[in-house]
Amino acid sequence: MSQGDDTGTRPARLRSLLFAPGNRPEVCAKLPRSTPDGAVLDLEDAVPPKLRAEARPTVRESAAKLAREHPEITWYVRVNSVPSEWFARDITEALDPALDGVVVPKLDNAEQVAAVVDALSAAGLGHLHVLAGIETAHGVENAREILEAPGVAAGYFGAEDFIADMGGRRTAGNAEVHFARSAAVMAGRLAGVPMIDQVVTDFRNDDAFAAEAAEARNMGYRGKLCIHPSQVQLAHDAFTPTSDEVARARRLVAAHAAAAAEGRADIDFEGQMVDGPIVAQAQHLIELGDPT
Amino acid sequence: MSQGDDTGTRPARLRSLLFAPGNRPEVCAKLPRSTPDGAVLDLEDAVPPKLRAEARPTVRESAAKLAREHPEITWYVRVNSVPSEWFARDITEALDPALDGVVVPKLDNAEQVAAVVDALSAAGLGHLHVLAGIETAHGVENAREILEAPGVAAGYFGAEDFIADMGGRRTAGNAEVHFARSAAVMAGRLAGVPMIDQVVTDFRNDDAFAAEAAEARNMGYRGKLCIHPSQVQLAHDAFTPTSDEVARARRLVAAHAAAAAEGRADIDFEGQMVDGPIVAQAQHLIELGDPT
Amino acid sequence: MSQGDDTGTRPARLRSLLFAPGNRPEVCAKLPRSTPDGAVLDLEDAVPPKLRAEARPTVRESAAKLAREHPEITWYVRVNSVPSEWFARDITEALDPALDGVVVPKLDNAEQVAAVVDALSAAGLGHLHVLAGIETAHGVENAREILEAPGVAAGYFGAEDFIADMGGRRTAGNAEVHFARSAAVMAGRLAGVPMIDQVVTDFRNDDAFAAEAAEARNMGYRGKLCIHPSQVQLAHDAFTPTSDEVARARRLVAAHAAAAAEGRADIDFEGQMVDGPIVAQAQHLIELGDPT
Repeated sequence: MSQGDDTGTRPARLRSLLFAPGNRPEVCAKLPRSTPDGAVLDLEDAVPPKLRAEARPTVRESAAKLAREHPEITWYVRVNSVPSEWFARDITEALDPALDGVVVPKLDNAEQVAAVVDALSAAGLGHLHVLAGIETAHGVENAREILEAPGVAAGYFGAEDFIADMGGRRTAGNAEVHFARSAAVMAGRLAGVPMIDQVVTDFRNDDAFAAEAAEARNMGYRGKLCIHPSQVQLAHDAFTPTSDEVARARRLVAAHAAAAAEGRADIDFEGQMVDGPIVAQAQHLIELGDPT
Repeated sequence: MSQGDDTGTRPARLRSLLFAPGNRPEVCAKLPRSTPDGAVLDLEDAVPPKLRAEARPTVRESAAKLAREHPEITWYVRVNSVPSEWFARDITEALDPALDGVVVPKLDNAEQVAAVVDALSAAGLGHLHVLAGIETAHGVENAREILEAPGVAAGYFGAEDFIADMGGRRTAGNAEVHFARSAAVMAGRLAGVPMIDQVVTDFRNDDAFAAEAAEARNMGYRGKLCIHPSQVQLAHDAFTPTSDEVARARRLVAAHAAAAAEGRADIDFEGQMVDGPIVAQAQHLIELGDPT
Repeated sequence: MSQGDDTGTRPARLRSLLFAPGNRPEVCAKLPRSTPDGAVLDLEDAVPPKLRAEARPTVRESAAKLAREHPEITWYVRVNSVPSEWFARDITEALDPALDGVVVPKLDNAEQVAAVVDALSAAGLGHLHVLAGIETAHGVENAREILEAPGVAAGYFGAEDFIADMGGRRTAGNAEVHFARSAAVMAGRLAGVPMIDQVVTDFRNDDAFAAEAAEARNMGYRGKLCIHPSQVQLAHDAFTPTSDEVARARRLVAAHAAAAAEGRADIDFEGQMVDGPIVAQAQHLIELGDPT
C-alpha cells in the first residue's frame, strides 16, 4: 500500500501477513483474495533451495504486478537470510521498487540489518522498509538492537525456526517458546515497532489459531503470520481493536500532540505514561481500527 | 513504622501493601483496620487526574496523623511518576516527615530514582526510602539498576500498567505477564530488595487472590499489593513464613555473622551459598515471621 | 569415557547424569548398573557438610576404580562451590586423573570458572572439563558468560537451588522456574554447550519424570540430572534421538564440512542457518543416537 503518512515506510497495519511460495506465481496471484493486511512472496522456507535462484525474476514480476493492482495491501518479498548464499542476488534480482518492504528472516544482530539496508540502498531500493525476523537464539538475545536498527519498521517472532535453532521440539502448547516469544514482543515495544506473532502450522485448526492469536494479542503482538488464506479472517477478528480502544488511542495521540506543542515530551494520559513508542503504538491501533 | 534496626530505611515486612485514594481522607482513615504491613495514600492511579494537585495537602495531613497513631504500619504516599507534571510538587507538598517511604510508580531507569532521591533530599525528606514500581517495558528491562539504585528499599511489579505499556491485555491466567513478573522478582533478588507482587483487581474473588499469592511466593515475591481490606489477611496467610522457615533463617544469619567475625564473606549454609542478599532475605523472613 | 574425538574434553552424551553420595563407596560402586551416560560422585549436596572433608580420599579412590573399569561412562566428581571452604582441597584431594570432568555447582560468573580451571591446571588435572551448575540468580543472569568460559563443556540447570536462592518454593508444575530454566538453556545454545535439565526429586513418580523430560527436550535440553537409578532409562527414552533426527544431523555435518572446504562458514541447510554451535549440536545428536 502507499504509505499515506509522513513516517515514510512504516506499515499501516499487519494484523495478518500472508505468505505464498514465490516460485509459484499462480499461488501468489491469489494472495489478495483473502484481503490480508500484508502479503509476502517468499523466496526462503516456502521454496525448495534448488529453485530459489531461478525463482527470482518470477518473484519480481509477480511483485510488480500485485503491488500495482492491489495498493490496499502492504507487499513484501521474503529474501533469504543475510549469511546465506542467496541473499545478495535476492536483493538485486527479486525485489521490485513497487514493494513496500522486504522480509528478512533469521536476523542475528544489528550488523546484519545494516547489511540489508546497505544492499537495498545500493540497489536503488532505499524506500523499502525491513520487516525483521526474530527466530534464532542470537536473534532473541539481540532482538532490541535488531528492531531498533535504522530501516526496521516491524518484526515477527518465528517459533518453528527458533526451536530448530535450540535443538528442541515444537508443541501446540507453546511452553517451549514462551520465554523467547515474550522477550521478542517486549523488544518490539522498547524499539517502538509492531511485532507479528508466529505461524500456526496446523492450518485446518481454526480454534487453535483463534486461541493462539488471542494469547498473542494479550502479550502485545499486533498480528499473526498466516500460511493459509483461511487464517487471514481469523487474524483480523483477533487483532482488530474495538471502537473504545480506537477512541482512547485517538485521545492519547491528541493529548500527546497538545503537550508537544507546549514543549512537553512525556505525559500522563489517563493513568498511562506516554512516550514516543506508546504514541506509535496508539497510531498503529488507530490504523488497525480504521475500516479503510 | 519506626525501623528499629541499623539499616536505616529498610521496611521490616510488606506481606501486604494496602492502597487507598489519597483524596478521600475518610477512606484513608480506615487503612489501619485490616492491619496491613504497609499502607499507601495514593496520589496516582486511584485519584482522578484533575483532583491530584488539590489532594496534596489532604494527603499530607492524613499521612502525618496516621503515621503518628499507627507506628505498627509502614506508611507510604504514592506520588505520580517522575516525568509527570505532578511529580515535583507531590514531593514537596504531599509528603510528611513521619512517613516511612515514598512509592514511585512506573520507574523506567536508575536516573529517575536518582531524581527522586535528590528531590526528597532537597525537601528535607532524605530519611524516606523509595519503594520502586516496576511496571513498564523499560522498567522491566532496567529492573536491576532501578532496584540497586541508592535509596531503593523494596519494589513492586505492576501487571496492569506493564501490559498497558505493552499494548496487550490482562487475563486471569497471567501468562501475558509471566516473563516480566519473573524478570522483576529475579532483579529484586540480585539487588537484594524484597519484591511485592501485582494487584488482583477482582477483589471479591478470595480464591483467585490466594492462588495468585501462592504463585507469587513460589517465585520469590514477599507480599502482594492490596486494593481492598479483605485482601490483607489473605496476603498474610500466604506470605507468613512457617516457624521452621524462621528458625532456619535465624541459623543462617547467625552462621553468617560467625563467619564474618572470622573474616569470611561467603559461606555454605546447609547446602545454600550465602551472600549479602541472601542474608538480607533471611533477615526479612525473620521479620515476616516475628509476631510483633 | 575416553573422548575419542579431537575436541578434547567434550562429553559425548549426557542424556542421564546419575548422582551418588561420594562418602558412600558402596552406593557409588553401583552407579554403572543402570548404565547412565554420565555418573557423578558427589561431594556437595548429597554429603552432610561435616563429612565432606574426610570423604575426599574415598571419593578419589572410588573415582579411579570406576573410571578404569567403566570407560563407557563419562565420570565426574562434584566438588563444592568455588567460594566454599571445601573447594580448594576438593580439587587437590578428591579428583583422580582418570575422571572425565568435574561438576561445579552454583557458579555465579565467569571469574569463578577461571578459578576452577586454574585450580585444575595447578593440580595437573587440566585435561578435565567443567560441567557448570547454573542454579543461582547470579548464575542465570550470567549464564552465557559462564557457559562460554574456557574449560566449560556442558552445563546443568538446578531448579531446587535456584528457587532456594530466590527465597521461593518449588512446585511440581515448574512455573516458578520456567523463566530461569528457559534462560539457562538459551544461554547454553548461545555458548554452544549441551545443557542438562533439573532433578525430579519425586523419584518414585515415573510419569512425572517422563513428562518433565519431554518438556525439557522440547526446550532444547539434552538430558536430565538423575538421583535414582530408575530415572536413567526414563531419561534415555526421552532424549535418544530418532533415526530420522540422526540422519538429518549427519547430512548437516557433512554439508557444513563441504562448505568449510570451500571456505564458507555459514550455510543454509534444509531451511536452517548453520553456524558453529549448530554443528556442535548436530554432532552431539549423532553421538546421542549412536548405540555404541
